[in-house]
Amino acid sequence: MDPTSLDKLLPFVLKRDNIARYEDGVVYIGDRRKYPFEKVFLRCDDVEDVARAIEDMVTQGGGPWVAAVFAMAMAARSVEGKPPAEALDYLRKAKARLTNTRPTNTAMARRLDDTLRVAEEAGKVGRSIEQAILDWIRETRDKVYENYEYRARLGASLVDDGDGILTMCFAETAFILAMAFAKQEGKNIHVFTPETRPYLQGARLTAPSLHELGIPVQIITDNMPAYVMSQGKIQKYFTAADLITLDGHVCNKIGTYQNAITAHHHGIPYFVFMWGVDYKSPDRASIKIENRDPTEIRACRGTPTTIAEIDAYYPAFDITPPYLVSGVITRYGILSPYDLKRHFIQP
Amino acid sequence: MDPTSLDKLLPFVLKRDNIARYEDGVVYIGDRRKYPFEKVFLRCDDVEDVARAIEDMVTQGGGPWVAAVFAMAMAARSVEGKPPAEALDYLRKAKARLTNTRPTNTAMARRLDDTLRVAEEAGKVGRSIEQAILDWIRETRDKVYENYEYRARLGASLVDDGDGILTMCFAETAFILAMAFAKQEGKNIHVFTPETRPYLQGARLTAPSLHELGIPVQIITDNMPAYVMSQGKIQKYFTAADLITLDGHVCNKIGTYQNAITAHHHGIPYFVFMWGVDYKSPDRASIKIENRDPTEIRACRGTPTTIAEIDAYYPAFDITPPYLVSGVITRYGILSPYDLKRHFIQP
Repeated sequence: MDPTSLDKLLPFVLKRDNIARYEDGVVYIGDRRKYPFEKVFLRCDDVEDVARAIEDMVTQGGGPWVAAVFAMAMAARSVEGKPPAEALDYLRKAKARLTNTRPTNTAMARRLDDTLRVAEEAGKVGRSIEQAILDWIRETRDKVYENYEYRARLGASLVDDGDGILTMCFAETAFILAMAFAKQEGKNIHVFTPETRPYLQGARLTAPSLHELGIPVQIITDNMPAYVMSQGKIQKYFTAADLITLDGHVCNKIGTYQNAITAHHHGIPYFVFMWGVDYKSPDRASIKIENRDPTEIRACRGTPTTIAEIDAYYPAFDITPPYLVSGVITRYGILSPYDLKRHFIQP
Repeated sequence: MDPTSLDKLLPFVLKRDNIARYEDGVVYIGDRRKYPFEKVFLRCDDVEDVARAIEDMVTQGGGPWVAAVFAMAMAARSVEGKPPAEALDYLRKAKARLTNTRPTNTAMARRLDDTLRVAEEAGKVGRSIEQAILDWIRETRDKVYENYEYRARLGASLVDDGDGILTMCFAETAFILAMAFAKQEGKNIHVFTPETRPYLQGARLTAPSLHELGIPVQIITDNMPAYVMSQGKIQKYFTAADLITLDGHVCNKIGTYQNAITAHHHGIPYFVFMWGVDYKSPDRASIKIENRDPTEIRACRGTPTTIAEIDAYYPAFDITPPYLVSGVITRYGILSPYDLKRHFIQP
């Protein structure tokens, strides 16, 4: 499917230009902290603006790397005409600042490395570095969306007419496209999306996205999935993953694991969309779960849920072992979680 | 333990006078909607005030019946000196109004019937009906707290030194007392309490109650219990029950069931405090799960969690089957969920 047609299928929050876009040296980032209550963009006039936006969680998931590489184009524009060595030195500093915004986002770091390589090559042949980076971004995004589409078609093939689908958090483009394709194929589906406390990605991002596409969706609280399963209302469970280790452990937003257990208990298969592999995390033991500030647990969108002196615990992610995973949806097909090593070979 | 000593062990929200009290014809009800942010009481000057307070969820759990029977004393006071037939007629009307506030609360209905019987007997011997009802309330509450204490001691006997304890919603006096007794016995415990969306009983009632008693407690969101279990931090799971059927099915606040599944998955026993039996609900099929207004799912303490056009689903309770229940803590001891019929015989 060509990029424009694919983009038309996507809901507001996932359209390319709404994730982040570049207009004459200015980067606009879709502000996911305010969506769906407001559809607004944060204007960034320099690299520092973009870096702070990424740190402040203005965008998340597949957003930060796009904003970061656009910031590199912005940096290139600001040193256009300067001697190549000086220009590249500036770009290296910009890259370091951007990489430091999310030290654990290795995918973003790799793509920032790529932009520097593109800049070096453009510098050698006397081409506009800004334009070279922008061309590279367009081509890279095209490839990314081809990958989304391929995995989304695989996901849609797992959905049967009449299925109730459970998801968790915001599984982004591959999942939302899979639901859109299932609908296009004439399958009637109904999605249940847990709100995903404390940040409410399910309530704020997943549900409005599916609703916009005309796919029946209901929000439930995070304590409801098993009961909805026991009523026979759920046939498939789909999520994305922040990280899948080569030994088949799925690290994803907190709650993914308990839904996987209760799905297993009710005979419901669990499928996970896999982006790629982080070779630094080969197995479960190598995953470090981030414990976030417990004050976030004591509030909901700024409203206190209890008094300040009460202690709270906030592990942000959990780990689902491979025996609870029915299939990993990858660019190589729908794989067994026990067979990832054979496909994702260390480069 | 005498009533005063027991009361001293309880946290603010569970002390007898803070649930509801009677002072010279006025009923004060502890306002659980505002706790723990404010410790306030709702003043009720007549039966209608109390009825509306019960309807408005000012109190819940073990609170409504106490408020309702005090309202009957209030009604008796207002007809003191009237001819017995006229006084009893007024009391019958008051009882009907109070019973209608919560048509499914059969325990409250039974106790309102009892107050009418007490009134009739007092009328026959020319005794003050108000005083007769107040005496009956004190005796009845004493028996209720004896029952709480007995079951709490059983609960504490199931706790080992060093245990991590999971609970759900607000398991009220029997559970909180069990934790207090375990502490008195010198056992170090740590309680994890899921916040229990959408009403946040875990965050608002359970956590502050345990904190007040000096018992280490941490709030988690409802998507975290299984992950905390996988870390080896939980050894026992305890809840109360809104209803336990004679065939061992536990109906309790939504989320109880999925915690029971994930506890079972991790080899953690699940114990449930049982008050009594509703003979109208002998088996799972006889339980009707209340679906509440889905607008409550789209907000948290009044703050929207998504936009109004998104659909939501709100089953308020769930059902845990007996194979997931390790023991039912009753006035007859810690029973197998498969052995309830033999003990709770239809009167």
